[in-house]
Amino acid sequence: MAKLTFLGLGAMGAPIARHLAGAGHDVTVYNRTRAKAEAWVDAHGGRLAPTPAAAAEDADAVFSCVGADGDLEAVTLRKDGCFAAMKKGALFVDHTTASAKIARQLAVEGKDRGLLVVDAPVSGGQSGAEAGTLSIMCGGSDKAMAAATPLMQAYSSRIVHIGGPGAGQTTKMVNQICIAGAMQSAAEALRFAQNADLDLDKVFEAVSGGAAASWYMLNRWKTMSEDSFDFGFAVDWMRKDLSIAIEEARSNGAALPFAALADQFYGEAQALGCGRLDISSVVKRLPKT
Amino acid sequence: MAKLTFLGLGAMGAPIARHLAGAGHDVTVYNRTRAKAEAWVDAHGGRLAPTPAAAAEDADAVFSCVGADGDLEAVTLRKDGCFAAMKKGALFVDHTTASAKIARQLAVEGKDRGLLVVDAPVSGGQSGAEAGTLSIMCGGSDKAMAAATPLMQAYSSRIVHIGGPGAGQTTKMVNQICIAGAMQSAAEALRFAQNADLDLDKVFEAVSGGAAASWYMLNRWKTMSEDSFDFGFAVDWMRKDLSIAIEEARSNGAALPFAALADQFYGEAQALGCGRLDISSVVKRLPKT
Amino acid sequence: MAKLTFLGLGAMGAPIARHLAGAGHDVTVYNRTRAKAEAWVDAHGGRLAPTPAAAAEDADAVFSCVGADGDLEAVTLRKDGCFAAMKKGALFVDHTTASAKIARQLAVEGKDRGLLVVDAPVSGGQSGAEAGTLSIMCGGSDKAMAAATPLMQAYSSRIVHIGGPGAGQTTKMVNQICIAGAMQSAAEALRFAQNADLDLDKVFEAVSGGAAASWYMLNRWKTMSEDSFDFGFAVDWMRKDLSIAIEEARSNGAALPFAALADQFYGEAQALGCGRLDISSVVKRLPKT
Amino acid sequence: MAKLTFLGLGAMGAPIARHLAGAGHDVTVYNRTRAKAEAWVDAHGGRLAPTPAAAAEDADAVFSCVGADGDLEAVTLRKDGCFAAMKKGALFVDHTTASAKIARQLAVEGKDRGLLVVDAPVSGGQSGAEAGTLSIMCGGSDKAMAAATPLMQAYSSRIVHIGGPGAGQTTKMVNQICIAGAMQSAAEALRFAQNADLDLDKVFEAVSGGAAASWYMLNRWKTMSEDSFDFGFAVDWMRKDLSIAIEEARSNGAALPFAALADQFYGEAQALGCGRLDISSVVKRLPKT
Ligand SMILES: NC(=O)C1=CN([C@@H]2O[C@H](COP(=O)(O)OP(=O)(O)OC[C@H]3O[C@@H](n4cnc5c(N)ncnc54)[C@H](OP(=O)(O)O)[C@@H]3O)[C@@H](O)[C@H]2O)C=CC1
Ligand SMILES: NC(=O)C1=CN([C@@H]2O[C@H](COP(=O)(O)OP(=O)(O)OC[C@H]3O[C@@H](n4cnc5c(N)ncnc54)[C@H](OP(=O)(O)O)[C@@H]3O)[C@@H](O)[C@H]2O)C=CC1
Ligand SMILES: NC(=O)C1=CN([C@@H]2O[C@H](COP(=O)(O)OP(=O)(O)OC[C@H]3O[C@@H](n4cnc5c(N)ncnc54)[C@H](OP(=O)(O)O)[C@@H]3O)[C@@H](O)[C@H]2O)C=CC1
Repeated sequence: MAKLTFLGLGAMGAPIARHLAGAGHDVTVYNRTRAKAEAWVDAHGGRLAPTPAAAAEDADAVFSCVGADGDLEAVTLRKDGCFAAMKKGALFVDHTTASAKIARQLAVEGKDRGLLVVDAPVSGGQSGAEAGTLSIMCGGSDKAMAAATPLMQAYSSRIVHIGGPGAGQTTKMVNQICIAGAMQSAAEALRFAQNADLDLDKVFEAVSGGAAASWYMLNRWKTMSEDSFDFGFAVDWMRKDLSIAIEEARSNGAALPFAALADQFYGEAQALGCGRLDISSVVKRLPKT
Repeated sequence: MAKLTFLGLGAMGAPIARHLAGAGHDVTVYNRTRAKAEAWVDAHGGRLAPTPAAAAEDADAVFSCVGADGDLEAVTLRKDGCFAAMKKGALFVDHTTASAKIARQLAVEGKDRGLLVVDAPVSGGQSGAEAGTLSIMCGGSDKAMAAATPLMQAYSSRIVHIGGPGAGQTTKMVNQICIAGAMQSAAEALRFAQNADLDLDKVFEAVSGGAAASWYMLNRWKTMSEDSFDFGFAVDWMRKDLSIAIEEARSNGAALPFAALADQFYGEAQALGCGRLDISSVVKRLPKT
Repeated sequence: MAKLTFLGLGAMGAPIARHLAGAGHDVTVYNRTRAKAEAWVDAHGGRLAPTPAAAAEDADAVFSCVGADGDLEAVTLRKDGCFAAMKKGALFVDHTTASAKIARQLAVEGKDRGLLVVDAPVSGGQSGAEAGTLSIMCGGSDKAMAAATPLMQAYSSRIVHIGGPGAGQTTKMVNQICIAGAMQSAAEALRFAQNADLDLDKVFEAVSGGAAASWYMLNRWKTMSEDSFDFGFAVDWMRKDLSIAIEEARSNGAALPFAALADQFYGEAQALGCGRLDISSVVKRLPKT
Repeated sequence: MAKLTFLGLGAMGAPIARHLAGAGHDVTVYNRTRAKAEAWVDAHGGRLAPTPAAAAEDADAVFSCVGADGDLEAVTLRKDGCFAAMKKGALFVDHTTASAKIARQLAVEGKDRGLLVVDAPVSGGQSGAEAGTLSIMCGGSDKAMAAATPLMQAYSSRIVHIGGPGAGQTTKMVNQICIAGAMQSAAEALRFAQNADLDLDKVFEAVSGGAAASWYMLNRWKTMSEDSFDFGFAVDWMRKDLSIAIEEARSNGAALPFAALADQFYGEAQALGCGRLDISSVVKRLPKT
């Protein structure tokens, strides 16, 4: 069994790290807010370390799942970050949803230090993390993937090696772009049906089996109709993710009219106090008569 | 077996009528362009009539599947339309995607004449019509539904009685509103992935199983990547349908920002010559680098 | 002096008719709600008639300014409409903002009856009507324009003959399309400035003289900043006008993404109770922090 | 007369620096591409220096007008940047359109070094710079403004002190947000008019005097109608500016649906090869029938 380090025990990181411990690995954790690390060690064993660097010493592999680019930089490249402390030949796997730019930068910095680096954003949400059924979209060398895959199998049902460094993050952007329109249109459709006084269950029965179907339609129609939003994937995260995708599109020449507009509508949802609610709360900005 | 009439032997009407004949009913057909009616009778038997009125005389039930509101009015209420010729107690089922307003008007006119009327737009496309697996969303009285259901079972896998007159059409609008964003976002996502030089098959493998999934993503990702659009649901029809939905929203107070914007983008697709191509051809207006 | 008829004494029609009376013409008025016609006659003289037809008998010219297509049809072509009653060679001038289609239809029907017809939508608002400084964009024959121009000079500062029947209405659509984006962007800019805690007067001073300037920015910045909306051009009218333009674009092949989106945002404004307020009230749907 | 330094002799910087020299000041210039600096000195006198630091030594005031945030950082804070070389009490005025964040950062860094700092983005374009009639929107302390104002008067017709550090840049964002919708709607309106076969000059005559008027409508209607775009304010710059504004809105809580959508449409214009053309070239993406 391997000696592993996990940085960032948030909603996603904590259950992922648990699956790694459950698979028999020796796991050292670090979390900025120490109490979370203590609670995790109490529940799942292993050790905690006071800094990413301390946590990473001697590890075979270091995993991270923090917030955004700046946070990822903080736990890797800045003072007390893990990169300087990692041993040659060790593996670094990042599950944060971040930019392709930082993924590529970490790959370069890692190469200089003899590290194997994989950018590995996930989809499946907190429930997928808890159940160990995440989809992981990966960027990195074949060698890095060969090292990472057996470890990631502890918590995923699908691992796809897309391409070189950054390809995992770019694929996650594709994922979020798809969501933007499907979610908004499901919201528009639901409100339209409500305003038309249709029986929402019957409408769902009639339209959910065909071309109108989307994950968001199938999984959020009922909850939207009940004004229930306190779960799922947060608007704040979605704005971060769309901002990353829109920024990337500036350099690859793609146009994203719906994603850009959805991003603004999520901004309106934030203003309505929905920042930490599921993105289906964007329905709240649509008039109900 | 019943004595049935079918008005409008287009891409949808012809196979639906065939399933009715195949179920053993005695079918009289009418088509504006007579040659199509002749070809249909040659292939499937039955009789043809020169006008909707002539076709409807003595029928137990009359079905229609024509283009839009004006066409529906032409085959029902105007000179030589079927309504004046139908016998008391007969059933009228309309499969056209039209406005809820005309559906309600036909219900009222039908009531005056002692007819049972169902607005019954379908989803499933031409392939669903051929296979006899359409989803039908219905508006009308219980009595009308009781008469229509056994007949419609010949070509559908799902029949949902949503509510009173117009409820079928309104539900079809919900369906098209859902499609608007899912389709556009799948197109944006595909172009973004192309511009980012990602392996499209691998991206599909990574994102198609989760929250990014939609019918359009699952069924059009590959065809869009092959620039193949000569099949499916035509842009011209989609514009008609979105125009109906946007118009309805004016009266029920719903806001449809994505549907309205999608409608304009389909207009841009029409200008690129995609009017009769599948709506996934909207991807053509997105820059490819 | 001429014998004139005016149909529709609303916010626009009443002052226009007053200018015609003030120019010395003999004016007979009709208004659906009789009380308004009585009040007008009390104030400005002339006669009132119980129907458009009765009002139009023997008139040299008939003017109308009603709501939308259906209303225009009601006062012209339907039972008791003016067309049947007008004498040969008489002039019909319509100031309603309506579709180009009905304008062309009236031109055709008018021709059959030997009437001269001008579609003549206006801009300048109620204040322009009161002041007699409207801009009039006209469609019709040269002969019809020659007859209409001297009469319209009583209440306009600019009269432009754009082209044949319908060209006036189509030009009014151009006008409303321009407004759509300028208004929304002025609203976005104002809210952005408020949220950034900038001194709004100084911002106005800095940006109003250059490329950011628009009529809406110049005339609504201050009122928006004071949450004052009870004046000006109503959201309900704007939705009607945008709907006409979007419909027209379906047939002339233009794409109107901003106008279509603005139309939906005005729908959201209506849901906030702004239907009868100035269109700058669309700022209300933008978050203020 | 003062000893001045000018960093960045581009389309805007060169004429601004010329006005300063013309006002009798002793001007030292720096330009990354040395040839431009040589040409400027040949034409207008003064001296050139090989680095921003060298250029700034002993100057009473340093002006800059470079590309974007990163460029501004390069000429100020990085190695050979001017900040380290400037004498205590000297003034720094930046005319770059950049983020409010870097403006505030320069103000803080400047304060530490005893410098007076003004963020002073301009509007008026290259022609305004040539003519010396720029509008300048300023952020900084009263003391810094007192020092900057007499110098800036050499090339501006309007100088507004909006507020503290960053307020100039934030006001420039307000300016660009206003432009986004006015420009796009003028483009939609023009194409609509073309597709409707209207006489464009007459339409302009009819609509340009009222509520449809905007700077872009007044100044770009004719050029768009002639497909002339090789002048004015470049699409590439506009994308940078909108990106800054959209980013700022993320933190101040404003929603910018039109600006965000316009940004994407400018991206489509870039893909059509319009990056260096005037932003009115966005009309090219609209179908012409
Ligand atoms: N939630 C979801 O459904 C999904 C989330 N993701 C992505 O996964 C990532 C994590 O999300 P989630 O777990 O929900 O987020 P949480 O907010 O629950 O957790 C974030 C974790 O990152 C740590 N962290 C953040 N910033 C820093 C920093 N500067 N230095 C050190 N540690 C830091 C936090 O530490 P502390 O405890 O001290 O705050 C915490 O452990 C994000 O990129 C998100 O977009 C991807 C798919 C789904
Ligand atoms: N195609 C699809 O995938 C789907 C289509 N629909 C809807 O089904 C309806 C029919 O579509 P589809 O079959 O594809 O269309 P087609 O164009 O293939 O057929 C239209 C039929 O209507 C007839 N028709 C049209 N106008 C008139 C009129 N004024 N008077 C008499 N007959 C008329 C046509 O006659 P003629 O032969 O003389 O032209 C033809 O038989 C539409 O409302 C469409 O939106 C719904 C779901 C999916
Ligand atoms: N208000 C403005 O700033 C501008 C308005 N316009 C356009 O001018 C037109 C009139 O606007 P405005 O005067 O403000 O509207 P108002 O609502 O004030 O007046 C409408 C007038 O039309 C009459 N009317 C409406 N429907 C019918 C009908 N079916 N039969 C008979 N009479 C009818 C009304 O009669 P009753 O009194 O019985 O209701 C009333 O006299 C509209 O098309 C509008 O878009 C154009 C530019 C500016």
